[in-house]
Amino acid sequence: MRAVTYVKHNTVELREKPRPEIGADEVLIQVGGAGVCHSDISIIGLGDDNPLIGSTLGHEVAGTVAELGEGVTGWSVGDRAIVSLILSCGRCRECLSGRDNQCEVVAPRDGLAPLSPGIGSPGGMADFIAVKARHLDPIGELDPVQAAPLADAALTPMHAINTVRDRMTGDATVVTIGLGGLGHMALQILAATTGARIIALDTDQAKLAFAESHGADLALPSDGDAAGRILDETGGVGADVVFDFVGVQPTVDLATAVVRGGGAIRFVGLGGGSFPYVAGGGALPWGVNIERAYGGTRADMRQVIALAAAGKISVEVVRYALDDAVQAFDDLHHGKIQGRAVLVP
Amino acid sequence: MRAVTYVKHNTVELREKPRPEIGADEVLIQVGGAGVCHSDISIIGLGDDNPLIGSTLGHEVAGTVAELGEGVTGWSVGDRAIVSLILSCGRCRECLSGRDNQCEVVAPRDGLAPLSPGIGSPGGMADFIAVKARHLDPIGELDPVQAAPLADAALTPMHAINTVRDRMTGDATVVTIGLGGLGHMALQILAATTGARIIALDTDQAKLAFAESHGADLALPSDGDAAGRILDETGGVGADVVFDFVGVQPTVDLATAVVRGGGAIRFVGLGGGSFPYVAGGGALPWGVNIERAYGGTRADMRQVIALAAAGKISVEVVRYALDDAVQAFDDLHHGKIQGRAVLVP
Amino acid sequence: MRAVTYVKHNTVELREKPRPEIGADEVLIQVGGAGVCHSDISIIGLGDDNPLIGSTLGHEVAGTVAELGEGVTGWSVGDRAIVSLILSCGRCRECLSGRDNQCEVVAPRDGLAPLSPGIGSPGGMADFIAVKARHLDPIGELDPVQAAPLADAALTPMHAINTVRDRMTGDATVVTIGLGGLGHMALQILAATTGARIIALDTDQAKLAFAESHGADLALPSDGDAAGRILDETGGVGADVVFDFVGVQPTVDLATAVVRGGGAIRFVGLGGGSFPYVAGGGALPWGVNIERAYGGTRADMRQVIALAAAGKISVEVVRYALDDAVQAFDDLHHGKIQGRAVLVP
Amino acid sequence: MRAVTYVKHNTVELREKPRPEIGADEVLIQVGGAGVCHSDISIIGLGDDNPLIGSTLGHEVAGTVAELGEGVTGWSVGDRAIVSLILSCGRCRECLSGRDNQCEVVAPRDGLAPLSPGIGSPGGMADFIAVKARHLDPIGELDPVQAAPLADAALTPMHAINTVRDRMTGDATVVTIGLGGLGHMALQILAATTGARIIALDTDQAKLAFAESHGADLALPSDGDAAGRILDETGGVGADVVFDFVGVQPTVDLATAVVRGGGAIRFVGLGGGSFPYVAGGGALPWGVNIERAYGGTRADMRQVIALAAAGKISVEVVRYALDDAVQAFDDLHHGKIQGRAVLVP
Repeated sequence: MRAVTYVKHNTVELREKPRPEIGADEVLIQVGGAGVCHSDISIIGLGDDNPLIGSTLGHEVAGTVAELGEGVTGWSVGDRAIVSLILSCGRCRECLSGRDNQCEVVAPRDGLAPLSPGIGSPGGMADFIAVKARHLDPIGELDPVQAAPLADAALTPMHAINTVRDRMTGDATVVTIGLGGLGHMALQILAATTGARIIALDTDQAKLAFAESHGADLALPSDGDAAGRILDETGGVGADVVFDFVGVQPTVDLATAVVRGGGAIRFVGLGGGSFPYVAGGGALPWGVNIERAYGGTRADMRQVIALAAAGKISVEVVRYALDDAVQAFDDLHHGKIQGRAVLVP
Repeated sequence: MRAVTYVKHNTVELREKPRPEIGADEVLIQVGGAGVCHSDISIIGLGDDNPLIGSTLGHEVAGTVAELGEGVTGWSVGDRAIVSLILSCGRCRECLSGRDNQCEVVAPRDGLAPLSPGIGSPGGMADFIAVKARHLDPIGELDPVQAAPLADAALTPMHAINTVRDRMTGDATVVTIGLGGLGHMALQILAATTGARIIALDTDQAKLAFAESHGADLALPSDGDAAGRILDETGGVGADVVFDFVGVQPTVDLATAVVRGGGAIRFVGLGGGSFPYVAGGGALPWGVNIERAYGGTRADMRQVIALAAAGKISVEVVRYALDDAVQAFDDLHHGKIQGRAVLVP
Repeated sequence: MRAVTYVKHNTVELREKPRPEIGADEVLIQVGGAGVCHSDISIIGLGDDNPLIGSTLGHEVAGTVAELGEGVTGWSVGDRAIVSLILSCGRCRECLSGRDNQCEVVAPRDGLAPLSPGIGSPGGMADFIAVKARHLDPIGELDPVQAAPLADAALTPMHAINTVRDRMTGDATVVTIGLGGLGHMALQILAATTGARIIALDTDQAKLAFAESHGADLALPSDGDAAGRILDETGGVGADVVFDFVGVQPTVDLATAVVRGGGAIRFVGLGGGSFPYVAGGGALPWGVNIERAYGGTRADMRQVIALAAAGKISVEVVRYALDDAVQAFDDLHHGKIQGRAVLVP
Repeated sequence: MRAVTYVKHNTVELREKPRPEIGADEVLIQVGGAGVCHSDISIIGLGDDNPLIGSTLGHEVAGTVAELGEGVTGWSVGDRAIVSLILSCGRCRECLSGRDNQCEVVAPRDGLAPLSPGIGSPGGMADFIAVKARHLDPIGELDPVQAAPLADAALTPMHAINTVRDRMTGDATVVTIGLGGLGHMALQILAATTGARIIALDTDQAKLAFAESHGADLALPSDGDAAGRILDETGGVGADVVFDFVGVQPTVDLATAVVRGGGAIRFVGLGGGSFPYVAGGGALPWGVNIERAYGGTRADMRQVIALAAAGKISVEVVRYALDDAVQAFDDLHHGKIQGRAVLVP
């Protein structure tokens, strides 16, 4: 079968690999769609001596059941399914508590990232992928091309939002920075699931227009005036919650400049921007709660699937044939994608 | 009356000031005890051009009602009371929501600190203090000398603990660093109100002995071996929650080195230690939730008073006559106090 | 001034009363609108020996500031304001914790209801009402006629919803029964602030049509088929949360018949329907959480005002001149009001 | 092997049965201890036509691993383990969310009880029991005789307590009624994990003495004076939280009589006492939250194991040889057990 393979630093190729064999508790999925994510770009930029070289990429994967291991129940050939982002153990304390994105087995405290398809396990940018039955969720009638990005581009924002949901009351102001793959889903999730006032920011005018028609109460250019404008809009006290889906220096600076005392910031984008966190002072007002979230839980996944099935959120998909994977990576790298690129085998 | 006054950089003096007049909604408290806090040392170190110069210090204050404003109800002369740490407005969104330590009126987002007795309003290191009736809580039969430090040394830890209480289940490990004024109360609050395993750290052997007899499951020297030891004790995954009541560089480093993925750190000590908070990576595992707490709420205050009244927590008090205030400041500055220094007028 | 007065069992009259004098901490409000509620009907049905006879009714009140007590700050003549439903003390443990609808002073455990305008204190179905400044919230540019019902018809559902918000995830099913004064606001609040699937029920076809255009995912007649239909829609497991805004026997039976194990019911309607709650068995599946809510908190109030100001919820108002108050009571009693009747002085 | 078998209405016998065969994902446990519970008495009282007749009883089971299925990892022969109370599916929405005691597969909304060892699956009052590996938790060095009752007698109170933990602050009053098998563990869990004031009630003087030495702040006879006494102790406002581990009519009446407005009751005992729950009025103050809990989650289980391992809670065990099972049932039925009877094979 065809498989998008990380062959060396900053290089992917479509290679021929054997179709995977499945174990007794596994399912073979015929891939219907596989999303291309900024973290794929980050992964292939890691350098030539890393253990992921040679592996098939793709951690946003949906498709149809093609074959069942002998011990698998609850699934039939032809069922549509989405593959879990995090291949959690299901048995440690975190998994049993519904916090499986922090699985003690597959997400060690000093690890690069938890075990995922395409990150330590063969990914889904291929004709087929083998996964344990318990790492699948049903997607009903959803198109796998539309559904695939839910596995990360919707899941990760949903998780970040769920960690701070109690602060997003009807009288709260939420700022969300960045309207790319994750950000355009975050906006829709916020609009669908909270009554808070949403201020959306991006540097791209087309993305701001998207925001205005998808639930933002206010869409602002992410520029030097943004912080002042947000403080004005909140009577000087600042925003209750700020999501940064970019994470470069200007967005990190903006986030810390506009959060209110006792508010919260969630850093999701991996842009490497930073600030000194100082015990007793520094950039943040007193009482600000911050967290750098990773992925989401199985419960978060059920929520995004349900919202998508109800039409309350939807991914802006840009389709690429699997054979055009290199082009898709290139377009994403050059900022040409509005929404999410999905490879279609 | 006598009043401990911040006269210039790093200098306090006992001065004579007029006994305060009270307004219609105020109460005159005859001070029974006033705690001396590391933040008092910080305040007088701020420099000679700051607006607090000339003011009476003291934000941990308890005493007895000496006189009532004409509009005050619910209090009688002779009642024992403790003064609120934060002189909140009682009417903004935060106050109405029970988050009065983030009062929009008295705790602006870019302020040094919320308005408190001794920090923007006359403090309680004096024979008398005038306060609005609604900034008092009853302390029943508690001795004001014992009760005074509850206003900060117990309140502030209680608040920090309450922000992360849901993670301190019976199977959790909590690390608390620093067993000084706030830390020795934090330990007792943790022991009294959670079933979590408590690992307490300090550099002082006497404080570690105190910890062993006051609820710590394990007391460890805060040295170069501490991080490794804590990781060993937690099977390599790290601690669920870490409290840093010191905030100097070694304790900040320790906190970030031992927190588990998905765990939490609360920085309370004002020691100025820091680390770069990086979007997408850096010192912390994924999913760690951090917050730099300030003071506590009125609801937190009720909790510490109740625990003290029940004998479940108690302050290690070192008494000083009000006339010996300068000595008390000096002893605290030189690390000679075990527990809390309290000035007794 | 004119005042709608409860004169005897089941009888109200418009009477002339003196314009109220205000105290130092009070504000005189020129009433712009006063909602008429089913609980007004319940109150006047209480019998002839009750202490409310002779009092002015009206607990949903908004208007403009006409006069200020000498100690009042933060308000100006002409400002628009809404009066708190519950005249809480502001100082007890519940008030300080943001649970002021359970104020220990004005809401005793065995009381009929907490102290409110029109229920123990003079109400707002009059030309003027005097209230303490701290029992007012600003409504900005909202029309007092539109805003008045927020004080109960929106506040009470908001509170009930807030008590169970964590169960209303994007993959949850919420059933809301009754689309009258409170119910038509509950539906809009649910749609604006959660992503859950909403099934709305009523016996009135016009109200079901309203539901379909105001956020219900499914609107069903509240009849003998409803329970079966809801179980079908949820794969037999039942609804995560059920709100009963009617409370008569058929709706109570429906609520208990469709809630899932581990789900929740909130009974808000005062219809007197009942079921035997049995320790160890009975009508409810295991783990169902139930609560009979009353009114809401000041924080809930801020949320409904913000949603209304943003146009995310709005009251269906049926206007009556104050002089036609008797007619409004009669129309409400006979089920002729769709939305909320508001008296306009 | 020997197995305590439910042979007919109100009758158990020790019978010889074949030692169970294990499947690929199962583990054979050599039973070290099996608790005897009031619900065992309830089960055998269900009547002669019920499907449990002929089955082996015992849902509180701990022991050592004797044999491993070929697909089992993470366990070794000789390891000590406790068997899960609820044999949840591990894959439905509730299981994935950490609410596995409400598993959609094994706990249907209208079921008698979720699937458990001894309740629909062979129980542990026998020499051996076969269980899926994922239905085991490690108990370290704990004695299986001491550990067995944790599976229900400690788990069920822990779950009930966890559902209402946020109300049990240091200034709260908690009433716990009944100090039998579950109640004596509830008391210890409350004392170990909350700072609330605990008032414990029972009709048995020996149990009250136990309460006084195991963390109760006040131990009271559960008689006609109890309600008045509790209201006095709480200044007339009532208790924040009430747990009823008995559930007979007098305890249900007591619970409803002493809970404060906005408080909570958790009914755990299966005694069949009841009250009419009325929409709009009735026995309960406004805002009281009630829930009839069942069992607990895997996360709750980890917590009780950790507390027991740390010596913070411990079961009062009355040992019976497995051959004396009939005697143990009889003694429990006649109220002769203080703590928990455990059968030791």
